[in-house]
Amino acid sequence: MKLATYKDGTRDGQLVVVSRDLSTAHYATGIATRMQQALDDWGFIAPQLQDLYETLNNGKARHAFPFDPALCMAPLPRAYQRLTGTAYASHANLLGDADGALAVHQSPSDTLQGAHEHVVCANENSGVDFSAEIAVITDDVPMGASANAALEEVRLVMLSNAIALRQVAAAVQSQPVASFSPVAVTLDELGDAWADGTVHLTVQVTWNGRKVGMCDAGTDMTYPFGKLLAHACKTRALRAGTLLSSGCISNAGFEKNGQTEWPKGYSCIAEKRAMETARDGKATTDYMKFADTVRIEAKGKDGQSVFGAIDQELAPLHA
Amino acid sequence: MKLATYKDGTRDGQLVVVSRDLSTAHYATGIATRMQQALDDWGFIAPQLQDLYETLNNGKARHAFPFDPALCMAPLPRAYQRLTGTAYASHANLLGDADGALAVHQSPSDTLQGAHEHVVCANENSGVDFSAEIAVITDDVPMGASANAALEEVRLVMLSNAIALRQVAAAVQSQPVASFSPVAVTLDELGDAWADGTVHLTVQVTWNGRKVGMCDAGTDMTYPFGKLLAHACKTRALRAGTLLSSGCISNAGFEKNGQTEWPKGYSCIAEKRAMETARDGKATTDYMKFADTVRIEAKGKDGQSVFGAIDQELAPLHA
Repeated sequence: MKLATYKDGTRDGQLVVVSRDLSTAHYATGIATRMQQALDDWGFIAPQLQDLYETLNNGKARHAFPFDPALCMAPLPRAYQRLTGTAYASHANLLGDADGALAVHQSPSDTLQGAHEHVVCANENSGVDFSAEIAVITDDVPMGASANAALEEVRLVMLSNAIALRQVAAAVQSQPVASFSPVAVTLDELGDAWADGTVHLTVQVTWNGRKVGMCDAGTDMTYPFGKLLAHACKTRALRAGTLLSSGCISNAGFEKNGQTEWPKGYSCIAEKRAMETARDGKATTDYMKFADTVRIEAKGKDGQSVFGAIDQELAPLHA
Repeated sequence: MKLATYKDGTRDGQLVVVSRDLSTAHYATGIATRMQQALDDWGFIAPQLQDLYETLNNGKARHAFPFDPALCMAPLPRAYQRLTGTAYASHANLLGDADGALAVHQSPSDTLQGAHEHVVCANENSGVDFSAEIAVITDDVPMGASANAALEEVRLVMLSNAIALRQVAAAVQSQPVASFSPVAVTLDELGDAWADGTVHLTVQVTWNGRKVGMCDAGTDMTYPFGKLLAHACKTRALRAGTLLSSGCISNAGFEKNGQTEWPKGYSCIAEKRAMETARDGKATTDYMKFADTVRIEAKGKDGQSVFGAIDQELAPLHA
């Protein structure tokens, strides 16, 4: 099924069930009002949401309304935990900031943004970068769970745009906010595209209307979600509603005529700059500026948008 | 006022108001059921809780009951954000793991433990250490707020025991869990002891029944809470319910007869080991073992416990 959270003036919004084709939606009132409530008691609540989802897809939900992604908060508008992994070793290799080793770090989660909300920034000259990522939300994961056991606890999948300020040194300041696709989807919605803890879909990244990335999130995922979760839960349990992002989706380059090529493009500007440096000795592409837009989307085999599109603009703090 | 959260089988527990002397309590039902609810709408809810607190202190609350800290969860049992600062430069200096610079990092907050709950650990040979800290909970803090402006948003103060696994390298694994005092108190409860974003109280640390630390949380706090918050909110807003821990409370040593002395003792074992190394060339005190206990408490001028005591035992994962 597909779930979203509609703005209602509160910090947690209203849980809605969205039809498979993203055309209609229905409030989940009577089942659960907030996404965290569903996650806290998934085994009991999810089947009821699934029933509503099926009724909605059959066109038989009596209070259905047209779904508008612009009215969405993040599917989970604030989380008790967000973790970010370094799932794609080719990203770390390209940026030269790590040896491509498995790592997971704690990320802020007090505000998770909706797909169409502006990214607000005080200073456009801080190396503002987007980063297209896959994010999952888990149920409770016990301390010491294996990769396979932890993977069993994944409940929902989303797209994410994690903003990075590449010219800000302090970690607590350099990753200010992340935004999420309009809907979060259960694993069965992905079908074959969910395999071995990896999402096998092409994630399209469009920057100021120009398609810059068409990376496959599956092929080069060095550390699938099971491995990332097992690493994070080694010394403690992870509680229901834990959000884990993959880190920047990246496909490895390959040699052709003595030069490295990256035909799939890039999911963050830092990678583009690293590619330029590798090829031409210096980076020529600048980071985002105010009014720049970024759009992130993934389509299924049927050509339909799976999660809806993240589509946002960079805006100054005091506009 | 003083607030606590009683266990009730749910993930968020039940908000209770506790009398100043920690002898009686009263459910806040009818005002707010959960602590986060109060934090989300503090201006509206806090005055109502304050009224109940005064009635309780006057012995006139009709459904008051004896307060039992063993029934407490953390005052905020899970938080949308926890940050940990390096507030005491003498701690960093002693451990030799930093230059004493201002830093704040993101910490896990999906499970915050109650004062009497066991600390559960898979391996006692991972350098298990306690760390006595002061923690505050804030209201919304705007992006770019100054230290003074950010300090205005502090709502509650607690004691904390942040467990560190000193022999585990990965950051996401080495700080598995933090526990909190039975009650969180508002700033007015601290009186003179709250000054310039610093808590001027002696924090007693007792390890296996032996008093090992009597550090003053005020005198050597290099970076008071206002400074830590301003650092954390430089590029993003912090949302209501943000929990900020000071990091290990530490008092600077001083020279006497050519040797450095630390008469106030220590708030974490790593400091004790660093003192031993400085004095004797090697550390002789070992880290915590299963069944070890740690107790952390702070008393006011009147000799009464301000926050109640953290009093816990280290226990194996599969007992």
